[in-house]
Amino acid sequence: MAKKIGVVLSGCGVYDGSEIHEAVLTLLALDRAGAEIICMAPNIDQMHVVNHLTGEVAAGEKRNVLVESARIARGKIKDIKDVRIEDLDGLVIPGGFGAAKNLSDFAEAGLDCQVHREVRRLIKGLVVKGKPVAALCIAPVLIAKVLGEEGFSHNITIGNDKETAQTLALMGATHTECAVKRIIYDHHNKLITTPAYMLASRISEAAAGIEEAIRKLMEEA
Amino acid sequence: MAKKIGVVLSGCGVYDGSEIHEAVLTLLALDRAGAEIICMAPNIDQMHVVNHLTGEVAAGEKRNVLVESARIARGKIKDIKDVRIEDLDGLVIPGGFGAAKNLSDFAEAGLDCQVHREVRRLIKGLVVKGKPVAALCIAPVLIAKVLGEEGFSHNITIGNDKETAQTLALMGATHTECAVKRIIYDHHNKLITTPAYMLASRISEAAAGIEEAIRKLMEEA
Repeated sequence: MAKKIGVVLSGCGVYDGSEIHEAVLTLLALDRAGAEIICMAPNIDQMHVVNHLTGEVAAGEKRNVLVESARIARGKIKDIKDVRIEDLDGLVIPGGFGAAKNLSDFAEAGLDCQVHREVRRLIKGLVVKGKPVAALCIAPVLIAKVLGEEGFSHNITIGNDKETAQTLALMGATHTECAVKRIIYDHHNKLITTPAYMLASRISEAAAGIEEAIRKLMEEA
Repeated sequence: MAKKIGVVLSGCGVYDGSEIHEAVLTLLALDRAGAEIICMAPNIDQMHVVNHLTGEVAAGEKRNVLVESARIARGKIKDIKDVRIEDLDGLVIPGGFGAAKNLSDFAEAGLDCQVHREVRRLIKGLVVKGKPVAALCIAPVLIAKVLGEEGFSHNITIGNDKETAQTLALMGATHTECAVKRIIYDHHNKLITTPAYMLASRISEAAAGIEEAIRKLMEEA
């Protein structure tokens, strides 16, 4: 039986959704490891739309997180609210600003952010059941917020950005610096985190860390 | 000196733009091979916008090919009209309906399609200079149309779809059937083609053919 691994997407594009390279590299590593992949996203409007050519917000434009995430999933995607804990052996959350803008409001609210209730449900549910959760790039902030509020000690990385690391610590996480091609593994909670494009200067660097993260996830799932 | 390889994008999403997996896997293989990657796209409106969750056209919605392609390129992308033949040692055109809807009107006009003038300029220019051109999935139709009109004998694949293969033959191409993990190499024109998602049922299959295509491209560039 193939291990069933959820992939939580947050749109399609680094500045307003899932980081596309991280998401695709995750799908590739999972497929090569023989996982059954279950892509999912919340059915909500994006915080905003960013023109990725200019970097500026496209005023007045609206896009839906589930609909845009479907581009990365080639249409094979579920509304996250329909995914049950028992459907999953493990979970991966790729990065991109979508994690901080759509799966939470961390980009605006920082320490006081709220995590989307379905993302919260899955992170907490999998950890409590002893199933592994991987988060890439900025996405570990979601883990820190959810587990911090539950009072769970946990160890994660977002690379070496001091300000973000400090915020994670205030949420209740232990932050460990990590090189781009490496992972931090919290064996108590089965959490796997890697910096990806928080540190990567090229796609092959991001790929190396993501491959290692997925290897560990599949081992623990 | 790194070999300079152009990647022609056509939007962001299999149904109205570049096939995202094919584009990202191309970037990964090029980066791993040490290429200097030059992403480019035409600065034109997409033929239309497709909702990738429902598969239906999003009536009234407009998106720009260069702006959406910038999502895959993380903002580092050029208007194709600004790229000169002498800036490139080789070229890759990933698939997705964008090749047939935005880089040409093949999806609507079939045999009588027109190829975007800048795409035509690069394909013809590189072939004439003896520089390699790779095309994935449905994108070989662009090569067939351009080289067919020039009267160049050439050998390509789009997998095993009989109707499309027949149209390519009418354009002037020799079509050779090809398995998903293999490539067809036309040594006379230095053309490299692979079926990718014309045949792939999973991302790892597409990756195998694309890796082989990029390996050959870098060898010939």
